[in-house]
Amino acid sequence: MPPNHLGHYRGLMDTLLLNSLIGALGPDRVLTEPTAMAPFTGDYSSYTPEADPLAVVLPRTTEEVSVALTWANEHAIPVSIHAGGSGVAGGAVAYAGGLVISTRSMDQIVEIDPASRLAVVQPGVITAELDRAAREHGLFFAPDPASTEISTVGGNIATNAGGFRCIAYGDTAAAVAGLTVVLADGSVITTGSRTVKNSTGYNLTQLFTGSEGTLGVITEATVWLTPVPEGSCHTFLAAFDTLDDAVRAVVEINASPAFLEALELIDSGIVGFIEDFAAPGLPRPAAGLLMGQAISPSAAADIERAAQICRNNGATEVTTAADDSLLDARRLALPALQKAGQWVNGDVGVPVPALPAMITRIAEISAELGVEVRIVAHAGDGNLHPNVRRIGEVDPVADEAMDRIISAAVAYGGVITGEHGIGIAKHHELSLQFDEATLAAQRAIKSALDPKNILSPNRGI
Amino acid sequence: MPPNHLGHYRGLMDTLLLNSLIGALGPDRVLTEPTAMAPFTGDYSSYTPEADPLAVVLPRTTEEVSVALTWANEHAIPVSIHAGGSGVAGGAVAYAGGLVISTRSMDQIVEIDPASRLAVVQPGVITAELDRAAREHGLFFAPDPASTEISTVGGNIATNAGGFRCIAYGDTAAAVAGLTVVLADGSVITTGSRTVKNSTGYNLTQLFTGSEGTLGVITEATVWLTPVPEGSCHTFLAAFDTLDDAVRAVVEINASPAFLEALELIDSGIVGFIEDFAAPGLPRPAAGLLMGQAISPSAAADIERAAQICRNNGATEVTTAADDSLLDARRLALPALQKAGQWVNGDVGVPVPALPAMITRIAEISAELGVEVRIVAHAGDGNLHPNVRRIGEVDPVADEAMDRIISAAVAYGGVITGEHGIGIAKHHELSLQFDEATLAAQRAIKSALDPKNILSPNRGI
Repeated sequence: MPPNHLGHYRGLMDTLLLNSLIGALGPDRVLTEPTAMAPFTGDYSSYTPEADPLAVVLPRTTEEVSVALTWANEHAIPVSIHAGGSGVAGGAVAYAGGLVISTRSMDQIVEIDPASRLAVVQPGVITAELDRAAREHGLFFAPDPASTEISTVGGNIATNAGGFRCIAYGDTAAAVAGLTVVLADGSVITTGSRTVKNSTGYNLTQLFTGSEGTLGVITEATVWLTPVPEGSCHTFLAAFDTLDDAVRAVVEINASPAFLEALELIDSGIVGFIEDFAAPGLPRPAAGLLMGQAISPSAAADIERAAQICRNNGATEVTTAADDSLLDARRLALPALQKAGQWVNGDVGVPVPALPAMITRIAEISAELGVEVRIVAHAGDGNLHPNVRRIGEVDPVADEAMDRIISAAVAYGGVITGEHGIGIAKHHELSLQFDEATLAAQRAIKSALDPKNILSPNRGI
Repeated sequence: MPPNHLGHYRGLMDTLLLNSLIGALGPDRVLTEPTAMAPFTGDYSSYTPEADPLAVVLPRTTEEVSVALTWANEHAIPVSIHAGGSGVAGGAVAYAGGLVISTRSMDQIVEIDPASRLAVVQPGVITAELDRAAREHGLFFAPDPASTEISTVGGNIATNAGGFRCIAYGDTAAAVAGLTVVLADGSVITTGSRTVKNSTGYNLTQLFTGSEGTLGVITEATVWLTPVPEGSCHTFLAAFDTLDDAVRAVVEINASPAFLEALELIDSGIVGFIEDFAAPGLPRPAAGLLMGQAISPSAAADIERAAQICRNNGATEVTTAADDSLLDARRLALPALQKAGQWVNGDVGVPVPALPAMITRIAEISAELGVEVRIVAHAGDGNLHPNVRRIGEVDPVADEAMDRIISAAVAYGGVITGEHGIGIAKHHELSLQFDEATLAAQRAIKSALDPKNILSPNRGI
């Protein structure tokens, strides 16, 4: 068959396929026009679809997700799952000729149960909105990725998103009590419980958390809420002449009893980008700024304890405040960085005591390859975002620098992604983290739950 | 072939099989005499092997476990895993003609890393010994099942064991950072990391935690240690005329900001058994005793806050102490109960706000069936141990009472086992907790990782 006939034949097949999907879900749940589909085909990464997907569906219920997946599985159509679209690893990018399941229309807070400190939400609820709703009951939703105003609870669970408050309250996984999940074949399962303790069966809740849409579609989540701490908010800001001094202070603060809910590092380059971007009036350190925040009855003492550790470790200027003002500028790091050029963005994690060695190694890699590396970090939990300046769309030297950084993190007992997930971006780096047997075990689970490999194929694990 | 010839043939086959195992591991790692094997064939449940296992192996390394499993998998021999032998659900009971892998000889604390607050241990380390070793560094191991002096870290991880301190520090799962696991086919995998945050691949750490020896043998565990809190220990003891009053106090304490590390309930029947057993001089309440403990800078105030809530909820007598004396008698509940008769032991969990309804329902079931039910509970986390008096080895009425209790717990959003695991004991009750699709998903994972179903077959999930 000549190519143009093949194209015609494919077009007919697509129409038949689409008609069966529209017939099953109704026309108001299915988008097929390229312009209508566009908002659901990409994310915040630089990856883009190779061609349009066949359709985007906007289900409102678990049952509708089940219908869509049953259809996709029957026809072996690759599926991407689009939540807030704020992922940075490419996990939500549409497949050419694939199906996109958007959770945007599943945006209801189903229940807030203050007595059990639980909320039940649909996956498309914006994370910050759940947090605000919880605060009306004296509770809050602890996970707070930088994207909290645009990312969704479902997306945060799918990537096990991190954020500022992990040193006090853990990652997103720590807040997930149970899930409703639609598997690849359309079957619906429930995981977890509303109890504090549970030794019943395999912990599928934590298996699906962080699975990046490769095992199923989360259609409802039961999450733990946390009591708003008593006490007031205190912050500190410390300027350092070397990053080594700054991270040595982090290691010491981490080992102290000071209870902080954020401990963040920005190197001097990024401080400059932030000042160029929004001029918040930060001190201009020789090497970097460390900033910490505490909200608790002992917050003032804890912040002073941390500030004193900074002074003892060579901080040249230390400011404290009885409010959250000193940390505001930290949230500008990412947009400021993006305005300042193109970067290969890293997301490695290391044990906190390995931070000094890791900082040293990153400086060596920068020198070895002659690349600019700028670091912003959730330093308190060892999660570093080293950013390597990229010249042009493809920059093998920048990529090589990032590979060396990731290899160093793993060598120090760390991980190739601390909070962003693997997606497309780090798929080729999995062998740096996992040996063959471990990768095979993970893929055996994937095959068991998605035998036709339709869910986010060739991404994540 | 007549039966005696078949027996002879089997005996020859067994000898050949055993010789290949002994050849692979060396004779000093393999027990085959029934009296030598006996300590490794049962646990604290009432279940016993139907016949002797073929052998017990006592490996010292991950590699030796791998050799043993490779052998068992090749010959499709069922494997039970014996750690401390303190399980109460029958999970460690030997299979007739099976292989027992004992972790008793893998009892080394490999590393304590105070800066990272991590320990690396072999699975046979006694839980209380790890806790004591950590305390030399100002840290402790938070999971504290009642069996802490005889159970092992590996066994606690395999069952996701609970204990007293879960309301403050979570269950065993919350303390597990990473594992080395030998799979059924002998392959060795590593899970997790030494970092606080990790979004790399599936969370196999939490999949294996609580999997009750059905997915692999844990040969090394990296666990989080917790800083010993500043402040002193304070406790309270409150007597109630009704269990309803007592659990209403629990619900209110749970919703308050009081930070307790234990909140335990003993009904008046068990108080009587404890006095008969060891006469610690407890008050004799009409219905039950509530006891709480706090260790923190605010412990005295938190205990007074909890004590006042008890008074407000009708407690007839409330005592507080500036030490841990008031909780000591709680640890006598299990031996005192065992001395007082034979019981069907329950381990249900409910959301804390459901405790009043659950207590009422248990009383109804007791009246409906005319059975004696005695309750001891980790009340602060909703984990109840209702014990139904059993007349003789098999008591269908007592079993029916427990089935109704479990069904009630599930109906209130709870679980069929909060901290003991399923083992043999609750295997037939899985359908009370899980629908068909959810059970199928769990079993798909089991089949993927253990296709010949050699690891703890027909137990756990």
